[in-house]
Amino acid sequence: MSYSEISGGVTAPKGFLAGSVYCGIKPTNVDRPDLATVYSPQPTVAAGTFTTNRVKAAPVRVSAVNLRSPDVRAIVANAGNANACTGVGGLESAKRMTKAAAQALGIKDRQVLVCSTGRIGVPMPMEKVEAGIALIPSHLRADGSEAAAKAIMTSDTRPKSAAVELVIGGETVRIGGIAKGAGMIDPNMATMLCFLTTDAAISKELLQKAVSVSVEQSFNRITIDGDMSTNDTVLMLANGLAGNRPLKLDSGDFEKFQAALDHVTRDLAMQIVLDGEGVTKFVEVRVNGAASFSDARRGAEAIAKSTLVKCAWFGCDPNWGRIMDALGYSGIKMREELTDIYYDGACAVKGGVVSTTPMEKLRQVVAAPRFAVTVDLHRGSSEYVVYTTDLSMEYVKLNMGE
Amino acid sequence: MSYSEISGGVTAPKGFLAGSVYCGIKPTNVDRPDLATVYSPQPTVAAGTFTTNRVKAAPVRVSAVNLRSPDVRAIVANAGNANACTGVGGLESAKRMTKAAAQALGIKDRQVLVCSTGRIGVPMPMEKVEAGIALIPSHLRADGSEAAAKAIMTSDTRPKSAAVELVIGGETVRIGGIAKGAGMIDPNMATMLCFLTTDAAISKELLQKAVSVSVEQSFNRITIDGDMSTNDTVLMLANGLAGNRPLKLDSGDFEKFQAALDHVTRDLAMQIVLDGEGVTKFVEVRVNGAASFSDARRGAEAIAKSTLVKCAWFGCDPNWGRIMDALGYSGIKMREELTDIYYDGACAVKGGVVSTTPMEKLRQVVAAPRFAVTVDLHRGSSEYVVYTTDLSMEYVKLNMGE
Repeated sequence: MSYSEISGGVTAPKGFLAGSVYCGIKPTNVDRPDLATVYSPQPTVAAGTFTTNRVKAAPVRVSAVNLRSPDVRAIVANAGNANACTGVGGLESAKRMTKAAAQALGIKDRQVLVCSTGRIGVPMPMEKVEAGIALIPSHLRADGSEAAAKAIMTSDTRPKSAAVELVIGGETVRIGGIAKGAGMIDPNMATMLCFLTTDAAISKELLQKAVSVSVEQSFNRITIDGDMSTNDTVLMLANGLAGNRPLKLDSGDFEKFQAALDHVTRDLAMQIVLDGEGVTKFVEVRVNGAASFSDARRGAEAIAKSTLVKCAWFGCDPNWGRIMDALGYSGIKMREELTDIYYDGACAVKGGVVSTTPMEKLRQVVAAPRFAVTVDLHRGSSEYVVYTTDLSMEYVKLNMGE
Repeated sequence: MSYSEISGGVTAPKGFLAGSVYCGIKPTNVDRPDLATVYSPQPTVAAGTFTTNRVKAAPVRVSAVNLRSPDVRAIVANAGNANACTGVGGLESAKRMTKAAAQALGIKDRQVLVCSTGRIGVPMPMEKVEAGIALIPSHLRADGSEAAAKAIMTSDTRPKSAAVELVIGGETVRIGGIAKGAGMIDPNMATMLCFLTTDAAISKELLQKAVSVSVEQSFNRITIDGDMSTNDTVLMLANGLAGNRPLKLDSGDFEKFQAALDHVTRDLAMQIVLDGEGVTKFVEVRVNGAASFSDARRGAEAIAKSTLVKCAWFGCDPNWGRIMDALGYSGIKMREELTDIYYDGACAVKGGVVSTTPMEKLRQVVAAPRFAVTVDLHRGSSEYVVYTTDLSMEYVKLNMGE
């Protein structure tokens, strides 16, 4: 590895400021900051990915447009209200958020990206939001990453942060990020948000490529309940202050940068899973030997999304029958008599039938808070891995709403 | 309606016998009959449908072959062991079951259909099974439907039975059925089994057509946890003893027969849902105004399978945001601003935004043990309905295994 972990999150890279303010957006009026800002006084290039849900929250629509700006300067994100399913008024609110932030920071509306997470279908309390946004400048700090990470928490139990540094062409380059997880905000739906920064010099096009690749192997690999939010957003800003020669596609330097970015996003993705609601197990599901990449993915996702499989994990039950069943209904090319299933290194199923591994050994694996399930289909050479959790009674309790 | 409900289940139609014996298949040795038989001394034609799971239990494979026989006489089904993922030995066991039943009843092996439900991956205790099968003849009764219905129960809390009679060409025709549900048998996976009989005179081809149509609008419309079993089986026998002129395709009489059969299968499907593990709500999910049948189905199934939606129902929370979200990620053609959502008759969402219906009114609907969720996409004229349940803490507890 050519990078090392550092502290500082989203303000670890040179030149970025972050912070939080309290607007009072949440209906319960928890006295906690609920609006986060990441700001760059220097020009940046920006990249990002958004939910593929057809129901997109208003801030997603506005940010998707503003992301095209050549010089994005700020990300402003509130918790407590998702501004989703809010119609024309919701779009207007998201635009007003960009306008208010632009005024406060002395930049243009389209240099602001906005995100929201929280309750769906409730109009944004814009007076409170605008009053809070006006206070942003006095709360920005060069060490403000944790404050920002805390302000976007909903039912997350801890802020999520990661950063690395690496050397590119003799210059130290940093990549940092904060995230919030797929927990719920009572009584509505959750959102995954991730904000990334780097002081590397990189073109907008190449940054977008790096972010897309990185999201695919991190946030797109985690599933807790299989429900994709209307607000999921990953954004990244690069200000070039590290002074490296701009990264070039297919260069060794770009590969190093990609690997370092992948480490940050995968780290944040795992933090999200580990902090999932009512989660007692972290499970890596790997399907090997598939006839195609698509088969490997569908097989792994069917296992990771099966409520029966997840309930069994919660009960520390190495129930491979449910895994075999999920593979069977996933519709992939498979032959029962060729299929092997492992819990960590212990073989549970060999050639479609129960192995000779003592049940007690399998139970020990599944009793641990973290383990891997590996399937070998023996149908080809494609593989896929997904990170998931068990399904606990606590999960149901937390998600039953009022 | 040209049919009326009667009692008698699978032995309501003339000439069918049913019954149960105790083999002791279950590892816990519950002293309860665990092998059911439906038998016709008269020639029949048989039809059926099986799980589309690629992992098919051994009895499914054997019965799929024997179903082609021109004169099936018996269905033999055990609980306690699914005989799935049992390899070559499992297939041998399923064949031995047909052989033992054929010997006991004086018929040919291929006139016997076999089913199994229960634990996956464990060899069948064939000595016990064969000893039990030998006792079948002395336990067959003209009123043995309930005994058979009880013997196929696993975690079902009650036997499931339905029957109707109707008049076709002046002759009284009866259709009856028994079923077991999608509960779990500790610590393994569940199965839906349904056995149907009729004394109508009908060709094998037409019976297959009627069964396929009927399954599509009943058992294929129910989802509790979205996991499809390796053993799901629906079988139907027709012996012609009613003396009607054989039913003809596209005739009014065949339509009457189909409607009556649909009533029986839908009745049994609803009994299965209502007896689902840890179920506290029965929910009809209907998607109207879809651009295609496939869109209507995918939309309805996304809602019915969302753990977040189901947890909200369990909590009596009319959380329409989660419904909108599920529609959004289902991938169907939809526009948020055209979408309406109703709980029973109460409008929750109109044109993609919250309606003026008081929240208290919506809460009242969702607090009931049975309600309907209706979505109108306003994108076309296709519709689909699916029957489902909430997701309770009890469900997780029942399914966490050991």
